[in-house]
Amino acid sequence: MTVKSYLDMDAKALAAEYEAVSKEYNDLKSISRKLDMSRGKPNPVQLDLSMALLDQAPATLIVTRKGTDVRNYGELAGVDECKQLFADLLGLEQKNIIMGGQSSLNLMYDSVVRALLLGVYKGSRPWGQQGTIKFLCPVPGYDRHFAICQEFGIEMINIPMLPTGPDMDMVKEYVESDPQVKGIWCVPKYSNPSGITYSDDTVRAFAALRPAADDFRIFWDNAYIVHGFEDEDDKLLNIFDACREQGTEDMVYEFTSTSKVTFSGAGLAVLAASEGNIKFLLKQMGIQTIGYDKINQLRHVNFFKNVDGIYAHMKKHAALVRPKFDCVLHTLDQEIAPRGIGSWYRPRGGYFVAFEGLEGTASRCVTLCKEAGLVLTPAGAPFPYGKDPRDNVIRIAPTYPDIPSLAAAVQLFCVAARLAALEVLMADK
Amino acid sequence: MTVKSYLDMDAKALAAEYEAVSKEYNDLKSISRKLDMSRGKPNPVQLDLSMALLDQAPATLIVTRKGTDVRNYGELAGVDECKQLFADLLGLEQKNIIMGGQSSLNLMYDSVVRALLLGVYKGSRPWGQQGTIKFLCPVPGYDRHFAICQEFGIEMINIPMLPTGPDMDMVKEYVESDPQVKGIWCVPKYSNPSGITYSDDTVRAFAALRPAADDFRIFWDNAYIVHGFEDEDDKLLNIFDACREQGTEDMVYEFTSTSKVTFSGAGLAVLAASEGNIKFLLKQMGIQTIGYDKINQLRHVNFFKNVDGIYAHMKKHAALVRPKFDCVLHTLDQEIAPRGIGSWYRPRGGYFVAFEGLEGTASRCVTLCKEAGLVLTPAGAPFPYGKDPRDNVIRIAPTYPDIPSLAAAVQLFCVAARLAALEVLMADK
Repeated sequence: MTVKSYLDMDAKALAAEYEAVSKEYNDLKSISRKLDMSRGKPNPVQLDLSMALLDQAPATLIVTRKGTDVRNYGELAGVDECKQLFADLLGLEQKNIIMGGQSSLNLMYDSVVRALLLGVYKGSRPWGQQGTIKFLCPVPGYDRHFAICQEFGIEMINIPMLPTGPDMDMVKEYVESDPQVKGIWCVPKYSNPSGITYSDDTVRAFAALRPAADDFRIFWDNAYIVHGFEDEDDKLLNIFDACREQGTEDMVYEFTSTSKVTFSGAGLAVLAASEGNIKFLLKQMGIQTIGYDKINQLRHVNFFKNVDGIYAHMKKHAALVRPKFDCVLHTLDQEIAPRGIGSWYRPRGGYFVAFEGLEGTASRCVTLCKEAGLVLTPAGAPFPYGKDPRDNVIRIAPTYPDIPSLAAAVQLFCVAARLAALEVLMADK
Repeated sequence: MTVKSYLDMDAKALAAEYEAVSKEYNDLKSISRKLDMSRGKPNPVQLDLSMALLDQAPATLIVTRKGTDVRNYGELAGVDECKQLFADLLGLEQKNIIMGGQSSLNLMYDSVVRALLLGVYKGSRPWGQQGTIKFLCPVPGYDRHFAICQEFGIEMINIPMLPTGPDMDMVKEYVESDPQVKGIWCVPKYSNPSGITYSDDTVRAFAALRPAADDFRIFWDNAYIVHGFEDEDDKLLNIFDACREQGTEDMVYEFTSTSKVTFSGAGLAVLAASEGNIKFLLKQMGIQTIGYDKINQLRHVNFFKNVDGIYAHMKKHAALVRPKFDCVLHTLDQEIAPRGIGSWYRPRGGYFVAFEGLEGTASRCVTLCKEAGLVLTPAGAPFPYGKDPRDNVIRIAPTYPDIPSLAAAVQLFCVAARLAALEVLMADK
């Protein structure tokens, strides 16, 4: 049986299909279930991969190589061997690294706060003293980035995501013409939620920006830096290498974390930047705290040994994550693609699939899923102010459920997506 | 030989004493040493007391009693059993507690930042939109509190410390007449650096305040809540009990931490407040982070079991800390008291002795010590803007050095204090 595209159906065929899909939906709905594809969380089996992190001889968690007692105060920027580990991961040097707590979101939030109240390195004034400021937001993007802007009344401007990353013509236009544009949120590798990795040209275009503002910053949230799950990993150009050629290193704050490497609630977060930025930030951060958890830093160093240890560890994650993406993508390929009512990028890493349905179907699809026992990320969430202008993007998070639940969830999702599409198509006729 | 007070000496006697003490100082100075009484840090032997914290079966560090996987995201306010532990310690309920990271300084800083940018519960506007705001600063006090105010341009007003705590007449006058006064820094028990514990009347006077501002907050930094080292512990009235009688519970943010209970760099920090405040703060904090390190929370719960476990643990600290205070106080009693050139409160807990010398001697004494190889907290540090108006207070931190080093350090300190006093007295003649 060949499946026919909904876009080619006449009113009668649509009505027949609607009746069939409604029945299918109601049958699924009648089964009482609790399914969830909303959360970009590791599954407990993934967390089990890092249990050895908690199984270390206490005596190995006391002093650093240079003799600092990590149990005591101090070392605001983090212990050297831990900075080196993440410097190696990011292609930078120790002097470019601050180890900060266990949440990179917290580091990003604090970086915005400091810029608002105190200003940035070489900036003339605090952002907060310059009237309404603006951030560029590649969309779809990460809702928690946008929530920070919304919290502080920072105006957000949507920038479309292309297969190569954000539309850099538009980025350049805004950044170079408007001094009120102070920042841009980027997830450059296995982007949340589209899964796209920025092309080399895109990274170079970022590095070549000549901002109208003297205090513009790129928030380079490299959350999925080692989160490829296919044999071939996407390659992301090191933005600092590109910036060095342009003399624009001060423009970038890079962030990463081990939240989806070791433990989501008890990993390590990293801020990387130019030496000038780091010195400036440490001076500000020294007012906020005497230091972050250095025992956990040593714990991670002991666990990974070196950057190859991180790569080897991530292969174990990949083996668990890949079948889940396969499950989602395979079902979408079967149920949605031939019907012409949705598209998606096939990510080779990260935590999400961004489903793009017909215009005006996303919130309806999410509601239909919810009513049948499947929780999805709210429609609109991947957009500033929660407003998806075309109401057609749904973020799918495959990692947390086990495979049987995931299979049931994505099956239900496809039925709901078909029903929502049919409703819109029938209304158009 | 009876020692004569310097205050009773004539010019000739002072000159003779000056010559003798100069010789004594120069003899000490000729010995090359590295001594340090500047840091309110636990000694490594104290840190050893908590090594069992790091020696727990990994399987006991996974789930909370209600089944939350602490390795994963979530539980912004902390895990229930940990909140309960600190609720018990503070005489409050779980709903009054937020477990936040490992640094109470960070919680305080963030609380000021949120108030500046977003405002406080039931406040009409963010502090940052109200022109120059002010904080009251009981002096001598904690330099890192004052540094937060200075960082954000918050004007600081000195409030004298009395043997019962801050001068509450002055506090009341400022708080109730000036709506620009938004906060006060308090270390109510074993105060940093004087060691004084606020009297019940003082705590009740705080609770009875009727601020002119609708967004005034008491920053109640109960850092030394379980840090008594004598058999008899100072009793501090629970400020929330006092506030409940007055209907002023929303006025208080209480902070504490295990930085000097378990590990200074890897303990737990706590924010306690009214239920209204907590709900309001959690909403703001949810933008900043998904949650703090819950594994470390569980680690602490397993280690202490309950609040009696904390008390028992602190007895071990007391046994290590008490001889150090004895050493300092005994030497001061012998060398300084009879000469009439200094006074100090005898703390029964905490981490400091506040030495009050003759007016105009503190910075000279610190310099003399430094030149002879003893590092002290900079003179002026316990005051806003680093300015001790009488230049006579020096913060002594006895815990970090071992006893032989401490004995040598305090001996040198006394010689330097005598020399500095003699210089001032001779100039006066």
